[in-house]
Amino acid sequence: MGLELYLDLMSQPCRAVYIFCKKNGIPFQLRPVELLKGQHYTDSFAQVNPLRKVPALKDGDFTLAESVAILLYLSRKYKTPDHWYPQDLQARARVDEFLSWQHTALRSCCLRAMWQKMMFPVVLHQPVPQETLSSTLAELDSCLRLLEDKFLRDQNFLSGPQISVADLMAITELMHPVSAGCQVFESRPKLASWRRRVEAVVGEDLFQEAHAVVLKAKDTPPVDPALKEKFLHSLQSLLQ
Amino acid sequence: MGLELYLDLMSQPCRAVYIFCKKNGIPFQLRPVELLKGQHYTDSFAQVNPLRKVPALKDGDFTLAESVAILLYLSRKYKTPDHWYPQDLQARARVDEFLSWQHTALRSCCLRAMWQKMMFPVVLHQPVPQETLSSTLAELDSCLRLLEDKFLRDQNFLSGPQISVADLMAITELMHPVSAGCQVFESRPKLASWRRRVEAVVGEDLFQEAHAVVLKAKDTPPVDPALKEKFLHSLQSLLQ
Repeated sequence: MGLELYLDLMSQPCRAVYIFCKKNGIPFQLRPVELLKGQHYTDSFAQVNPLRKVPALKDGDFTLAESVAILLYLSRKYKTPDHWYPQDLQARARVDEFLSWQHTALRSCCLRAMWQKMMFPVVLHQPVPQETLSSTLAELDSCLRLLEDKFLRDQNFLSGPQISVADLMAITELMHPVSAGCQVFESRPKLASWRRRVEAVVGEDLFQEAHAVVLKAKDTPPVDPALKEKFLHSLQSLLQ
Repeated sequence: MGLELYLDLMSQPCRAVYIFCKKNGIPFQLRPVELLKGQHYTDSFAQVNPLRKVPALKDGDFTLAESVAILLYLSRKYKTPDHWYPQDLQARARVDEFLSWQHTALRSCCLRAMWQKMMFPVVLHQPVPQETLSSTLAELDSCLRLLEDKFLRDQNFLSGPQISVADLMAITELMHPVSAGCQVFESRPKLASWRRRVEAVVGEDLFQEAHAVVLKAKDTPPVDPALKEKFLHSLQSLLQ
């Protein structure tokens, strides 16, 4: 059995891994894990990833969790073009810096913005206090400013003149609040230009294919009531 | 000017970077940034790290934030022994997996446990609701179980038979709740043995030196009242 990837394209890091593989012609068996059907809670999935998160990778007997680790593993194993994770000492450090920062900054506020503005109220029919959403959107605004001022600056891509895995992680992240109707690019021309450059390199078709599920997330059919309770319990932290 | 490191050993990721440099004989100028005096809020520090966090690295004109990026940069630049960040594809992926996971798991609960049990009530004289602390300690317990069952397993170190940067990040993290009096190792013999192995490789003197500040944190003199307000505002997320 070759490379297997356990993905749900509703998940931002899954989209980054999916685009990376497709763009680089890395062959893999897609193992769909539907989060909104609670398939990550199953015992069979826990065998692949005890952390019960997607994406997860299985390569023969070797299993691996965490999107950043998966992207770097794939870039090394398949010797993808250098620009994705550059050998140059400083350029690679810039990519690593972004990949670290996003975990607790961009990831946190984009995920909460999307859940608070769309998933809780529209999909789970669970109201979110206005002040909670406002505070999250203010935090998202600060994060986007840092993304522009500290990371993108006057470069074409986040870590230099060429696209890297940092750009894939970032663009798939920003599409989370976009799917919920947040104005991410509208008043940020620098970020909007960067998005166009990333989409051009990825290719319009692949970009759309990877984002089709999340961009239709508001039309998700009602979630099973027992599962809804489980979600509300396990996703409490996204309401803060 | 050679390598400069902006550190406060109160901060877990700073301790990991400090131990890594000292253990590997990497020469650096220490630039102390006292977090409890608000020195990370100064304009001069923002020039080095616009994210206003420690650790931060300056190497000539090159500046770098984020402890994981700094550790990997130093391991590459100074060609430190392979075991710290192994070349082997799967071993390196295991280290990357831990380094990713800790950001939102171990880091989050160890930091909150330490602040809720010690820093807020003892240093800032700000009471923490009992149910908040209980919930954080339960989360810490789950995280420690994952650390043992998913990462350490029956290995000597987190990513295999030899110590890596993952172990440095983890041990310095666990000393955060230990400094606040949490029982991290007492009922976990496997984790306690791992701690002894890590301390033995690091060396008792260096381990103590790196942790002296945090182990005396409860005796911190009263924080300036204006700064206390600033801390309470900016650290709200640690009260959840």
